[in-house]
Amino acid sequence: MSLDGFIAAPNVDLERPLGDGGERLHYWAFGDGSTPASAADREVAGELFTSTGAFLIGRRTFDVGEGPWGEDGAFGQPCFVLTHRGRELLRRGPTTFTFVTDGIESALAQARAAAGDRDVCVMGGAGIAQQYLAAGLIDELHLHLAPVLLGAGTRLFEPLGAERIELECTRLIASPGATHLRFRVVK
Amino acid sequence: MSLDGFIAAPNVDLERPLGDGGERLHYWAFGDGSTPASAADREVAGELFTSTGAFLIGRRTFDVGEGPWGEDGAFGQPCFVLTHRGRELLRRGPTTFTFVTDGIESALAQARAAAGDRDVCVMGGAGIAQQYLAAGLIDELHLHLAPVLLGAGTRLFEPLGAERIELECTRLIASPGATHLRFRVVK
Repeated sequence: MSLDGFIAAPNVDLERPLGDGGERLHYWAFGDGSTPASAADREVAGELFTSTGAFLIGRRTFDVGEGPWGEDGAFGQPCFVLTHRGRELLRRGPTTFTFVTDGIESALAQARAAAGDRDVCVMGGAGIAQQYLAAGLIDELHLHLAPVLLGAGTRLFEPLGAERIELECTRLIASPGATHLRFRVVK
Repeated sequence: MSLDGFIAAPNVDLERPLGDGGERLHYWAFGDGSTPASAADREVAGELFTSTGAFLIGRRTFDVGEGPWGEDGAFGQPCFVLTHRGRELLRRGPTTFTFVTDGIESALAQARAAAGDRDVCVMGGAGIAQQYLAAGLIDELHLHLAPVLLGAGTRLFEPLGAERIELECTRLIASPGATHLRFRVVK
């Protein structure tokens, strides 16, 4: 997210899955088009795929991501898409997308079963991250702070409608493209 | 601020200058009432007073702070209070509060003159920090991230109404009570 808390710029749609200029938020992982991402940043980005055994994804994130993620589905893992509109299992190379219509706990149970002893990652968007947080189902937050004030867009954290949540910072990496923060949820 | 971006909890008033339970945000600097702040955190907090030669403060922050800041005015430096309601110069021990009614640039010029070769610190609240940011008058951001999701309150960063602002992370300290981040504004 940007330092001011946005994970997408304004006007997200199929043409602009991160909103107007929102790709700025991911320069740290993919480079800015002229300069590639740094080795340190790429290492952090790569950890996501080695530690994760299944992804949880919101329907809107899936809808705007399906095109950009391409023929191999980008994740290379089982993905579970929270949705009110059911759809058949979708295979994209090594990636599978399972559409779950019976709620966040069911999706988490299915993702856990698929992940084995690896982590389940709530990939986004903000809506499902907020739902899992408010339900007390998040163990760790991994944040990648892009050094920019975006000024507007979609916030990762909206008012929770829940008790405050205590955290403990467990890792901190300053790499050229971003500040990578990891927090454990204190339960 | 909290990891979700709040610098005060809901319901700020004279009785609760940081809102309901908002003192959680300052445990890193002052302790939590039973455990004192860590030496590393106190060192960061102390830097503010050694590097700063004048403070800029919003009127609401002054109004709710005047009581808690006590007889010595807490800052020990010249403070300039942005306001629409003029008031005579106020002395509290070594601290002076000058009330400035002719805008943020005038207040900054007065603070700069008072600060000499030391920094001018925009102390808050959020409103004046946003105004100085949007006007391009901030050189550095010093953020102290308390490891908590507050869930609601006053945000440091509201939509800017300005172009995005590029930053460069220049310092990062993980101390027991908070994650201390410093960013330079790229101009």
